[in-house]
Amino acid sequence: MTARLLEAHHDGSELYVPAGTPALGDRVPVRVRVPAGSPARAVHVRTVRDGEPEIRPARLDRTDGDERWFVAEVEVHNPVTRYRFLLDAPGGYRWLNARGVHDRDVPDAGDFRLTVHAPAPAWARDAVVYQVFPDRFARSGAERPVPGWAVPAAWDDEPLIAGQDVGRQLYGGDLAGIEEHLDHLERLGVDVLYLTPFFPGRSNHRYDASTFDHVDPLLGGDEALASLSAAVHARGMRIMGDITTNHTGVGHEWFERARDDRGSEEASFYLWTRDGYVGWLGHASLPKLDHSAPALGPRLIDGPDSVIGRWLRPPYALDGWRVDVANMTGRYADQDLTHDVARRIRRTLTDVSPDALLVSEHFHDASDDLTGDGWHANMNYNGFSRPVWTWLTPPGEHPMLGLPVARPRRPGGSMVATMREFASAVPWTVTAAQWNMLGSHDTARIRTLVGSPELVEVAVALLMTYPGTPMVFAGDEVGATGTTGEHARTTMPWDRPADRDEATFATYRALVALRRSSRALRHGGLRWVLADDDAVGYLRETADERVLVVAARAPWSGVTLPASLATGEPEALHGSVPLSLGPDGLHVGGVGPGVGVWRLA
Amino acid sequence: MTARLLEAHHDGSELYVPAGTPALGDRVPVRVRVPAGSPARAVHVRTVRDGEPEIRPARLDRTDGDERWFVAEVEVHNPVTRYRFLLDAPGGYRWLNARGVHDRDVPDAGDFRLTVHAPAPAWARDAVVYQVFPDRFARSGAERPVPGWAVPAAWDDEPLIAGQDVGRQLYGGDLAGIEEHLDHLERLGVDVLYLTPFFPGRSNHRYDASTFDHVDPLLGGDEALASLSAAVHARGMRIMGDITTNHTGVGHEWFERARDDRGSEEASFYLWTRDGYVGWLGHASLPKLDHSAPALGPRLIDGPDSVIGRWLRPPYALDGWRVDVANMTGRYADQDLTHDVARRIRRTLTDVSPDALLVSEHFHDASDDLTGDGWHANMNYNGFSRPVWTWLTPPGEHPMLGLPVARPRRPGGSMVATMREFASAVPWTVTAAQWNMLGSHDTARIRTLVGSPELVEVAVALLMTYPGTPMVFAGDEVGATGTTGEHARTTMPWDRPADRDEATFATYRALVALRRSSRALRHGGLRWVLADDDAVGYLRETADERVLVVAARAPWSGVTLPASLATGEPEALHGSVPLSLGPDGLHVGGVGPGVGVWRLA
Repeated sequence: MTARLLEAHHDGSELYVPAGTPALGDRVPVRVRVPAGSPARAVHVRTVRDGEPEIRPARLDRTDGDERWFVAEVEVHNPVTRYRFLLDAPGGYRWLNARGVHDRDVPDAGDFRLTVHAPAPAWARDAVVYQVFPDRFARSGAERPVPGWAVPAAWDDEPLIAGQDVGRQLYGGDLAGIEEHLDHLERLGVDVLYLTPFFPGRSNHRYDASTFDHVDPLLGGDEALASLSAAVHARGMRIMGDITTNHTGVGHEWFERARDDRGSEEASFYLWTRDGYVGWLGHASLPKLDHSAPALGPRLIDGPDSVIGRWLRPPYALDGWRVDVANMTGRYADQDLTHDVARRIRRTLTDVSPDALLVSEHFHDASDDLTGDGWHANMNYNGFSRPVWTWLTPPGEHPMLGLPVARPRRPGGSMVATMREFASAVPWTVTAAQWNMLGSHDTARIRTLVGSPELVEVAVALLMTYPGTPMVFAGDEVGATGTTGEHARTTMPWDRPADRDEATFATYRALVALRRSSRALRHGGLRWVLADDDAVGYLRETADERVLVVAARAPWSGVTLPASLATGEPEALHGSVPLSLGPDGLHVGGVGPGVGVWRLA
Repeated sequence: MTARLLEAHHDGSELYVPAGTPALGDRVPVRVRVPAGSPARAVHVRTVRDGEPEIRPARLDRTDGDERWFVAEVEVHNPVTRYRFLLDAPGGYRWLNARGVHDRDVPDAGDFRLTVHAPAPAWARDAVVYQVFPDRFARSGAERPVPGWAVPAAWDDEPLIAGQDVGRQLYGGDLAGIEEHLDHLERLGVDVLYLTPFFPGRSNHRYDASTFDHVDPLLGGDEALASLSAAVHARGMRIMGDITTNHTGVGHEWFERARDDRGSEEASFYLWTRDGYVGWLGHASLPKLDHSAPALGPRLIDGPDSVIGRWLRPPYALDGWRVDVANMTGRYADQDLTHDVARRIRRTLTDVSPDALLVSEHFHDASDDLTGDGWHANMNYNGFSRPVWTWLTPPGEHPMLGLPVARPRRPGGSMVATMREFASAVPWTVTAAQWNMLGSHDTARIRTLVGSPELVEVAVALLMTYPGTPMVFAGDEVGATGTTGEHARTTMPWDRPADRDEATFATYRALVALRRSSRALRHGGLRWVLADDDAVGYLRETADERVLVVAARAPWSGVTLPASLATGEPEALHGSVPLSLGPDGLHVGGVGPGVGVWRLA
């Protein structure tokens, strides 16, 4: 296996770009490392100003061992300023952009980007998020009447996979139940509690809100959220909410008023057709909001008294929002207000709670929506989850998520190319804040997808060492299974020790702690060094630390990396893959499935 | 050399998508061909609706020889509706998008697109454009005073390459001179005369207009344009103008009024800074317009009485505009009005002269600006000229255009990948209307770039057989040379027979005629079948015709294509590359440099 280290490299991390958000007109020095084996004889930087490229020479900044470091200044002339490097080489010039090095001309879409838009708050880059689906996490034992729409379930019942009752199965988890189990989160090491919706609806998932003014009484009401929030904050943790700005439930108080009185202000909040109203994906139960309505903004998204603003304020003091169906919010036929909606929500956060985080749900290609002035980051299914799933899929034909085909088993090179391509479409500040996941309440469980605890460990190692914010769906850490999103909404097995995989919990806990222990894993750049069919590897690097991560899904041939990567004896941080420093380099043994994480410098 | 024919294929041409512009809500049947060798066992179509993918099965439409044709319906739910095909295959599903077939997940950026925006007018797809730089084409002999800024040049002087006087060398070509030589255009076979600016300025290129109200008296004034336009139209040809909407000359009447009276309406037309005004690329001679000024639109771009509208009307009756520096028009720092400006200019065309054509100059990556509702098409440097140049560059190190490095000699695969990647970023309706060129008044001459008449023929064959509208810079057809854009602005050698390469003229004439003789070359789809280092090949296909084009820059190994591509004996249409139909296929001989064009069906 050939290492990939001989390529010139740049990304938006601190080794290459100074920390901080530039202002329009600032000149930012950007650095690029050129290893000894690279044919580059000179380096230039190409920026795009007002649509026109400008090429300027980079100068040699220093020589560090076998590497040359070049530096050039990029003027942040536009709010998002694109740049890439021109490497002059004897066989013909090459471009270095966020996808790598190219020996032909390439479009601007893969360029690096500097942006004047503030990135996600600093705490988000150090965070590990824990997703809780409130109906399934824990019951406080409070007695509450069962609403008419619900089909009560016993805590130990298996969730339905599909069918009419899938959204009606009510297990009765509540916010007080969550508050009682915060020790579990602390023991795991996570520090952000992300709750799927707490507004009342006519379903167990509550994505069909009937009001945005109150917490569902089934969850304990407003007081329970205030109490949970206080308890979370008392532990130095954070709490995030989940809101659908794309639609409401058909039972929402706004929609009821709208239907009763088509002349009402609320009627303007919805999209109407000749035959009735527009439902999300055609569902009559989910009327779609019309963000062109002037009166909707102040009620839902604009300012401290809007829904978005209000819950950020005490006593609820949410630390941010995850926005459901963000990909469709404000989009319908020839209306496309998504960026406008995202920017307005962001403005409300900035005004009300400047340290709050805004994350979109865009299950697909969110590139165009992540320019940095709206959503801080996205739930990174396409740039992380799907490539990891398809690399770790065991041999054999398994059902694919969301596609009417079998789930393929792709080689490591395919996973790496996919991750690089999706990452290259957004600024590094977004990549560094993306919510990476191995699954959520909308997907099968990772344990079910990969089939073994050994491969779960490989997956979790990637999750905890890749740039971005890891998110763990509650239950994954104890080996929960599930074949669909609905089926994966299992209850936590507090009283079912046999259903708790303590070894998996230990793996999660160790890898969360590993991330916390290393600034490079949280803030470092990303250099891929290995993309074998069965093994991949990368470096995470800050100015003071270099960590090597190798993940293998199966036995492989091993690799030898340049000895110069290590200063002294490598420090093993995690895993079973062997590493030895020999006279000709760093030997990584071809063990798999397994992972290895080492501090090299 | 392996042929690439075994890939499933789709593009926006008539074989795959019905002709005509769909309306919002239309359901459009899209077809995909799957050759026998493809592993695809089922086909689905993936569309993106309001940001959310939707997958639907395609059905087998027919079997045609060794090919299966599938069809699926795409609802044009958004003004630009993206779609691609999902090919279910035993080794794992694949995606077919405008870049080709992929065995991993890919972003939406390469998707096919249906758009509700009308494409370029029908005549443009059949056109061959001839670019004339008025000062250098022909002199009528009218005596005119030399303006103060000008340095008179004799007709046979070599243009300066660079320096202070490069824009001042005045040769004295005029519109009457052009009118006298329309026979030359007709003999060549071109049918659109595109004039670089005819407004007066203080330079020979006239991109620094001092007024938009009149034709430069040095060119013969308004009457000369009216006369030229009538003469062009009388021959069944068309005429296009060239305007800079990004800036004016510092001597423009608007700017003079603006400077005299900073309270004037005209002062609002320009971008001012604390130190003065914004000049294009910092040039004080070219003050940049501010398209956010409400009063500028009606004067320059909006409606029949604007500059854009007025010259489309009789007696000038321009058939369209090429918009200079379109990539920067309306863009400055945090202001980005480019799409708005393009849409408004387009609306003026639609109102005043619905059959007029609007082409942008974007020298770089225009993908984001070609959504179809503004510019019909772009001068396709990145998607055509540059890949062709770098493929046909002779061995050795030559200066690169616009980059401080040597011009590389890239392999055919690199050229094809670059052309596909840039084409995939725009709707097919745009690809089919792009202005392809081998050079312009802003580049070195193709004869100088490739170094030999044989390679010029290869280049012209690509130009005349590739999708889009070919543009010929006057002089290329007689073998003009020039090392820079300025140096390439040679005068036509009407009285210098030694400077006229009649063989090259014959090549141009034959290849223009070839294009005119074949509907497939003008309207057909594009299937690449060959991408060797030294030879490339593609099919252009309509429902009634299949044309094979092979272009070689050097001797190569030849290729065998499936016999099923030909119905009967292939008809040789042009060139020296041999083709023979044998029992095992179509043998293309490895002759080069050279081209071969055959009608296969």
